[in-house]
Amino acid sequence: MEVIATLEEHALKEYKWEDEELWISNYVARARIKTDYKVNSLLHHEVSPFQEISIVDTKGFGRMLVLDGVPQVSSKEGFIYNEMISHIPIITHPDPKVVGMIGGGDCGPAREAMKYSGIEKISVVEIDQQVTDVCRTWLTPSSHYDSDKRFSMIHKDGVDWIQENKGNYDVLMIDRSDPVGPAAKLFNQGFYKDVFECLTDEGVAVFQSGSPFYNTSTLRKTYHSLCELFPIVRTYLVTIPLFPCGLWSFTIASKKFDPLDADLSRLKAEDTKYINSEIVYASFVLPNYVKEILESN
Amino acid sequence: MEVIATLEEHALKEYKWEDEELWISNYVARARIKTDYKVNSLLHHEVSPFQEISIVDTKGFGRMLVLDGVPQVSSKEGFIYNEMISHIPIITHPDPKVVGMIGGGDCGPAREAMKYSGIEKISVVEIDQQVTDVCRTWLTPSSHYDSDKRFSMIHKDGVDWIQENKGNYDVLMIDRSDPVGPAAKLFNQGFYKDVFECLTDEGVAVFQSGSPFYNTSTLRKTYHSLCELFPIVRTYLVTIPLFPCGLWSFTIASKKFDPLDADLSRLKAEDTKYINSEIVYASFVLPNYVKEILESN
Repeated sequence: MEVIATLEEHALKEYKWEDEELWISNYVARARIKTDYKVNSLLHHEVSPFQEISIVDTKGFGRMLVLDGVPQVSSKEGFIYNEMISHIPIITHPDPKVVGMIGGGDCGPAREAMKYSGIEKISVVEIDQQVTDVCRTWLTPSSHYDSDKRFSMIHKDGVDWIQENKGNYDVLMIDRSDPVGPAAKLFNQGFYKDVFECLTDEGVAVFQSGSPFYNTSTLRKTYHSLCELFPIVRTYLVTIPLFPCGLWSFTIASKKFDPLDADLSRLKAEDTKYINSEIVYASFVLPNYVKEILESN
Repeated sequence: MEVIATLEEHALKEYKWEDEELWISNYVARARIKTDYKVNSLLHHEVSPFQEISIVDTKGFGRMLVLDGVPQVSSKEGFIYNEMISHIPIITHPDPKVVGMIGGGDCGPAREAMKYSGIEKISVVEIDQQVTDVCRTWLTPSSHYDSDKRFSMIHKDGVDWIQENKGNYDVLMIDRSDPVGPAAKLFNQGFYKDVFECLTDEGVAVFQSGSPFYNTSTLRKTYHSLCELFPIVRTYLVTIPLFPCGLWSFTIASKKFDPLDADLSRLKAEDTKYINSEIVYASFVLPNYVKEILESN
């Protein structure tokens, strides 16, 4: 087993040895469930000013980016999150030129956005440059996107960046992690107002809005906060095997265009592994218990 | 904490103590992932001729039925499985009178079937009477269904039962657990042929067909085996938070009626918590990576 020296040094609480095997554990305090992944090798570990960053290789998920002990994206199923946060808002807007993304230092959603030739500018705002560097080394070769002149990476606090870019963006993707640590302020009402003002008058934004199963308050608050600002707000669902309990939500907020009226012929799904034109509408169909979360106060 | 004496006696491998807390662990060897649930109390434990049966109370899922260490159904989200295995085959057939179910000793799907007044007979075939008894005591009060004269519970091996009931059934639900232990023979080609012969000429069957994420072979084999026998075979998806990685599949096999042509006005969804008329069609929309599983050999 390949294990770097820093493991014992840092005594990371999310790692544990069992019968001479290394496991990484993701604990959801709210539901008191833990998901443990057998680690074939801990490929990399470092501590940035913002968080602990590691890359592990696992049997079930391949390579995994782990931030502060929480798995964020894996090589085996990262396409699900990346495709579903990007294509839907992009096709909701009939002709987006300027696209921005807060978070998502692995640039997965940005690579999906690049498939749309009409897009002229793609900005990724990632607070933690070390996350970007680690992802480029271990997860996604940079050649895919460094050669695309439309793409720029900005290492800055997303809250500061969005206040400096009023009225410029056609599509914004808020690829925030859980509402703890550096991402916490991306869940405030003030931030939602900043997003509204960063968009053009026809702009569309999408937000990672949490698990509808074990964390109903994140979804409910996101939905209701956006309804106060945007005329069109819709939640859609996706199953992400890496995330606890699987079921996850995104919430789209739009000033003019309804995602249910999106022109599906615009969808660039030639080489996607998850999304297709039928999935777009189907993702907005909610089970009754999820509808109840949105309808309750 | 309320913990029955048999715990230490049996030294169940799926239970473990950590910092004076009891946890139950569900291990998926195929993907080398474990999901651990904090147990508030181990309410019941017994060993039947077929399996270990326990009922635990957990924070995240409420009461849970656990067979041989594998969580089967929970009070918090059991409605998802129960509604999705039952309503879809029932409305696929335009006028089902005789409905059978193999497995599912908790009778959840049978309770959904009872909502359809046209159904005249509902037989549940559960090999393990002790599972039924434990569920009646701890999970689902029997008053709901004992008063329904259409309902009968048969404690018998499903394979024997199905061979004795040729040509009788309009709808069959194969609520089998994983292809290990007593349920293994419910995954053989011979069993699929028995199901075909147990159905009327217009019959519809549905099968639990495994995780499309970490166990692609169960889904692929189920789908291809059924395609050899039935003219109409379709897989649909559901997210079950209790099951590892969340994403799960059911596969419907039909002699005459296509579930995509089902009369949605027949759906009895007045008090369902998951299913509604839009969900029926949306559940059959598959992400590309799941389509690829079905299309590959």
